[in-house]
Amino acid sequence: MASGDVHTERAPEAEAGPARAESKGQRTRRRILQAARRTFGNLGYERATIRAIAAEAGVDKSSVIQYFGTKQRLFGEAVDYRIDIDAQTTDDPARTAENYLRAMLERWAAEPDNPMAVLLRASMTSEEAADLLRRHVTSEAIDQIVPTLDGPDVRLRAALVGAVMFGITSHRHLLRMPDLAEADVDDVLRLAVPLIRALLDPPK
Amino acid sequence: MASGDVHTERAPEAEAGPARAESKGQRTRRRILQAARRTFGNLGYERATIRAIAAEAGVDKSSVIQYFGTKQRLFGEAVDYRIDIDAQTTDDPARTAENYLRAMLERWAAEPDNPMAVLLRASMTSEEAADLLRRHVTSEAIDQIVPTLDGPDVRLRAALVGAVMFGITSHRHLLRMPDLAEADVDDVLRLAVPLIRALLDPPK
Repeated sequence: MASGDVHTERAPEAEAGPARAESKGQRTRRRILQAARRTFGNLGYERATIRAIAAEAGVDKSSVIQYFGTKQRLFGEAVDYRIDIDAQTTDDPARTAENYLRAMLERWAAEPDNPMAVLLRASMTSEEAADLLRRHVTSEAIDQIVPTLDGPDVRLRAALVGAVMFGITSHRHLLRMPDLAEADVDDVLRLAVPLIRALLDPPK
Repeated sequence: MASGDVHTERAPEAEAGPARAESKGQRTRRRILQAARRTFGNLGYERATIRAIAAEAGVDKSSVIQYFGTKQRLFGEAVDYRIDIDAQTTDDPARTAENYLRAMLERWAAEPDNPMAVLLRASMTSEEAADLLRRHVTSEAIDQIVPTLDGPDVRLRAALVGAVMFGITSHRHLLRMPDLAEADVDDVLRLAVPLIRALLDPPK
């Protein structure tokens, strides 16, 4: 399954310095980003302080500031992700629908604090996070799906694909609604893929 | 449209005391509940203090404690709601699907701080709120829809109805995703009702 490949984080910028220092710097950076995702996800944007994130990462507050500058920039990097819509889109809308939903469900199952989940959670109590979510989902998902669709209402249909996928994934993995969280993923796909397929390629 | 009738809050308990005092008490109670919804929705469960809710309602902290006791009890009442699934369910699955989705969209459009929206927002950063959401949505929606369905996978199908409806409604009204927030409600219903219908009454 390609979920690890198709929802990828932006590669960390190369650190300055010699090879060994660079590698240690990248490890620290990654540890801070993971701690930031846990902290922003659990506490929301406002309550997550640089101090709390540093403590979660086991580093000094000054290291967090050195690597990321401000809380706002750290948040932006912690919730950044790419979705490779191209790699998931095929000539068969049913196959494409399954690729989209399976990749999202597998990513959230494998990594509860994935950037998308953290951004969604933080968006519920932070207008700043919600603004980032709107821009990010629009540019990374909706704008990529739209050119692959034919027929009327393409932007609204693409937005509904996103809303349905987020609804199902967040009810299963974030909110853990019992009937959905305990179901076999193949049963979820069997029932939900046709809904997404109908939005990608509406019945004539 | 029946949205005001079908998603109703629990009637406030009758207050003790003579008629005029009772009426004033009920008004204060309602004002505190509305302030609590705004505050829990904007700040999340943890950051919303009784002090902040009292300030938002323009009453003393002691009044909030007198009426509701603890923050936990106030939260429970602020996010409590009934959904009259019976009144929305008909013999025609397409009609039922439209009733469900239209009522939810209209309720959230009319009252952004409705109990469901506040409970969803708070659930993203509070396990206590998420637990209430799971129990409430299961007993008030899923358990009510299940006996109206035929065929296999009835609990999973009912859970997916909830997930799809929450996804669309929260993307339109809470997160205000541009393509969905700006669309005409009739276009949203035209494209989304068939998805819910397919879950209520799957194609053979």
